[in-house]
Amino acid sequence: MIPVSNDVFEKVMELAKRRGFIWPTSECYGSVAGFIDYGPLGAMMKRRIENIWREFYVIQEGYYEIECPTIAQEAVFIASGHVSGFADKMCQCPHCKEYLRADHVAEAGGINNASILKNEVLSSALAHCNCLACGEVLGNVEVFGFNLMFKTRIGPGSQRIGYLRPETAQGMFVDFARLLRFYRDKLPFGAVQIGKSFRNEISPRQGMIRLREFTQAEAEIFVHPSCKNCHPMFSRYADYTIPLLTYTQQQKCEPPVLISMQEAVAKGVIANEYVAYYVALTHELLARIGIKPDRLRFRQHLPDERAHYAADCWDAEIFSERFGWVETVGIADRTNYDLTAHGDASGTPLTVFIQYDEPKKVPRRRIIPNMSVLGKQYRTKAKAIFGQLANATPTPSGADVEVDGEMIHIPADLFEVRDEIVDIRGEDIVPHVIEPSYGIDRMCYAVLEQAYDEDTAEEETRVVMRLLPWVAPVHVAVFPLMARDELDTIAAEITRVLHKSGILAEYDDSGAIGRRYRRQDEIGTPFTITVDYETKETHTVTVRDRDSMKQVRIPVVKVPETITALVNGSLKFSSMT
Amino acid sequence: MIPVSNDVFEKVMELAKRRGFIWPTSECYGSVAGFIDYGPLGAMMKRRIENIWREFYVIQEGYYEIECPTIAQEAVFIASGHVSGFADKMCQCPHCKEYLRADHVAEAGGINNASILKNEVLSSALAHCNCLACGEVLGNVEVFGFNLMFKTRIGPGSQRIGYLRPETAQGMFVDFARLLRFYRDKLPFGAVQIGKSFRNEISPRQGMIRLREFTQAEAEIFVHPSCKNCHPMFSRYADYTIPLLTYTQQQKCEPPVLISMQEAVAKGVIANEYVAYYVALTHELLARIGIKPDRLRFRQHLPDERAHYAADCWDAEIFSERFGWVETVGIADRTNYDLTAHGDASGTPLTVFIQYDEPKKVPRRRIIPNMSVLGKQYRTKAKAIFGQLANATPTPSGADVEVDGEMIHIPADLFEVRDEIVDIRGEDIVPHVIEPSYGIDRMCYAVLEQAYDEDTAEEETRVVMRLLPWVAPVHVAVFPLMARDELDTIAAEITRVLHKSGILAEYDDSGAIGRRYRRQDEIGTPFTITVDYETKETHTVTVRDRDSMKQVRIPVVKVPETITALVNGSLKFSSMT
Repeated sequence: MIPVSNDVFEKVMELAKRRGFIWPTSECYGSVAGFIDYGPLGAMMKRRIENIWREFYVIQEGYYEIECPTIAQEAVFIASGHVSGFADKMCQCPHCKEYLRADHVAEAGGINNASILKNEVLSSALAHCNCLACGEVLGNVEVFGFNLMFKTRIGPGSQRIGYLRPETAQGMFVDFARLLRFYRDKLPFGAVQIGKSFRNEISPRQGMIRLREFTQAEAEIFVHPSCKNCHPMFSRYADYTIPLLTYTQQQKCEPPVLISMQEAVAKGVIANEYVAYYVALTHELLARIGIKPDRLRFRQHLPDERAHYAADCWDAEIFSERFGWVETVGIADRTNYDLTAHGDASGTPLTVFIQYDEPKKVPRRRIIPNMSVLGKQYRTKAKAIFGQLANATPTPSGADVEVDGEMIHIPADLFEVRDEIVDIRGEDIVPHVIEPSYGIDRMCYAVLEQAYDEDTAEEETRVVMRLLPWVAPVHVAVFPLMARDELDTIAAEITRVLHKSGILAEYDDSGAIGRRYRRQDEIGTPFTITVDYETKETHTVTVRDRDSMKQVRIPVVKVPETITALVNGSLKFSSMT
Repeated sequence: MIPVSNDVFEKVMELAKRRGFIWPTSECYGSVAGFIDYGPLGAMMKRRIENIWREFYVIQEGYYEIECPTIAQEAVFIASGHVSGFADKMCQCPHCKEYLRADHVAEAGGINNASILKNEVLSSALAHCNCLACGEVLGNVEVFGFNLMFKTRIGPGSQRIGYLRPETAQGMFVDFARLLRFYRDKLPFGAVQIGKSFRNEISPRQGMIRLREFTQAEAEIFVHPSCKNCHPMFSRYADYTIPLLTYTQQQKCEPPVLISMQEAVAKGVIANEYVAYYVALTHELLARIGIKPDRLRFRQHLPDERAHYAADCWDAEIFSERFGWVETVGIADRTNYDLTAHGDASGTPLTVFIQYDEPKKVPRRRIIPNMSVLGKQYRTKAKAIFGQLANATPTPSGADVEVDGEMIHIPADLFEVRDEIVDIRGEDIVPHVIEPSYGIDRMCYAVLEQAYDEDTAEEETRVVMRLLPWVAPVHVAVFPLMARDELDTIAAEITRVLHKSGILAEYDDSGAIGRRYRRQDEIGTPFTITVDYETKETHTVTVRDRDSMKQVRIPVVKVPETITALVNGSLKFSSMT
């Protein structure tokens, strides 16, 4: 049963708050919009999701994780374009003084395409719109850009401006030369980061969806520009078939097409194998954490939505009962934009020397002046003539060169023209970057929202979080039927042994057994072990499945391996009954 | 062989940079002091160390991890004292304009106790000292406090001041009420955080030892003030015996005493069982990551060094060839300071209701006025008299109360005195906080420095990082003897199977086998598997031990379980030979 009520957001956030998944930050001082705390269960679930991400990108793909600081110097963000361009259009209500996002005011006022209007034009257009905070007609307002980076100063005396990174990506671009050496100067290679990023949103009002401090998991994959259709492992996802909402379909208001990655690349629907590979991998990864396929779509950016340098860009969007389709992952072909920008700005070319399979024979003409004659004849000008001759175009009679604005004809007998064939071993190229970028907090919210369910147990409504076993914060709960008669010591020992196997087991002996089940159902604990009086005689315990509420008896000695297998998914509970 | 040369710092940092452990941050723009990047191997090693920390604190101790933002609102740090007190004394050289830490200038100039001198006194004292940057005599300088928190502004219009947290601890104090409910209102409980903290150091010049952005792992353990000597698991470390450098020994310049935790608590050397427990746990944890016991000491803070509110504080100090004894972990009894401060500042009492085993019978005297007579007789003053009577001390003739500065005698017949016995069920108490706080970057540096070694292999000097197998970034390297004759495909398949078991295996087929061994020795890879021609016949491979350079042959099918056991320490290589 999938809940479809509009208030699932309220229900899941109430549960998340009460049970320790998500808390308002520094609540006792009045929380701050755009910041959240992950409570004990939320932090555990988030870490499990991050580790699943690592299984894909670090272990499967072999891209090492690096860790750059969250504060970086201004030069980095001047080069990346964030200092000049990472801004939202903003205005201030002249009545209530609230700061508002101009595009949100415009949208509510029925003005389309606010994002592409110039500030002055948008200012006039907003005059008849209503303030989103106090409701008054705005009248005379000024629209201006508000840079979304948090600014700070490094060291005393305000010596150096620093910004909190708006994305983890820049650290990997800036480290390109070091990474290249680490990967022994060979393309393709990748680096990943999981960490905090920051955007000083003007007025964030969407819970975990729009945060000022959030966690990103980003991969930057550096590829040879002419090898974007030769991903070495493409066969893994060539036949992976998912619905794609291409930009042409969006323009024609048509539904997504079901297509394999191989076909999508062949037909030019997806720009290249690399983008297609990570679209498919993202689909698999999101399914692994519990996103339902019918609430997941891949939408291609429209040509005017895409960054000017990007060759292609796809968003994984997850449907939320509250927020509609939410952009959660972006997969972009950023071409050579980033490495070129940092190479130019830093003066350190961020290139790879690509050796040809065989040296190329290239004809080259050299002009070799007769220096002793030139020197005698032209004296102080001889050196300048020597320099100019190298680039001159000789004719049978000689060559014309310009020195200090004066044209001088150098007779052909004063130099020798030598046509040679030289070996060129290779060339310096700027790699292209394929970037899958994941919003971990949005993934966590989607997982919580989609896991929320209500059904009936013991003739009462039961709230149950249907989290996948490998995502649930607590793996298994261990209950003694009674907290006496040695049942409690046996249960405590089982808990201890499970901990030794790396299983997060929670011991609970307080309250009626039914109430204990409800507590675990509500936090998504997939399995429950109960120690009862039969345990003392037969050395068996019951294992209860959260979703079916069915129970099976297994020997105590089999508990660790059974629970481990259930939690990692290699054993299905249904196959045990 | 332990290297004792002074330049081990240079050697280990050169290796760390070259091989991808630690890089200067945003190097192509000129790096920024106090910030580092963890490269691919460094980030992996750091994550392994963090996960070992979690094995102790999250799994063994059962303290859940939470995750608070790194930016917090000003109110939090006003209450914590950081806004007013988290500052270093600073001065600016009038000649070269460099900002200097006043205590460093003073120390170099032979002035002791600079930290306790008033700014004006220190200013005069520094006049004859030399600038640490340009060497000139400072002359007329002003000493002033420089707050070490990075400041920023949240939202547009500079509406709200925020700071980057200087420690993760405050998030856990501020979340106390939520945590208490999560732990079902019972003491003791703990919460932990691993994350970034920030200190805007004036002039950081010590590599990984003094960073402006660093990683902390902190535990806050909330205990009943009268239960600090009843740690429920104290027996685990009661007999754990380590050398302690108490404050009295420091004052008398005596060496550390070897003492068990039980004895240390009994003799009052350590304040209580909780502090002793985490001193011992820290010793065990640091040994687990590879810190040598002879380079580790526990030093008690001197009375004037300790924060005024702290009941006891011990630093785990690790000896560095370059930096001497480096404070790496602090274990403090912070009493009720933090919870009281936030409770007072926020107006939300951060207390726990502790129910008595049995309600206490407490005598209470109630004074019950005869309202109707009082009202008639005193009219407008009756209500004030009613209020005052409750706290009055009645005599047989009546009671005196003060209303608007006037003493009024209320005759005894206008009220009734009732002596009752009431049940008091319990009381609200402010828990005390025990805080073990770990500097992860310093731990990483110490691990690298202590692992660095040089010996001889094949008659040449071999550089080898003697990292413990569970700390080394790469677990095992897999080499085909030749990159042909199927040896490469067999080796690649072994690598793939190892990945499936969660083992980080690195395949390498380039260069002579000796050179490949050297590459892995240098990054601390503990084991190497070589596929040779015998593999094809006997289905066995050689496993080489990094430290002894000995080799044993094992069947290919046994590789995953053997390597897993070697890496987690359950199997010793020496027992295989």
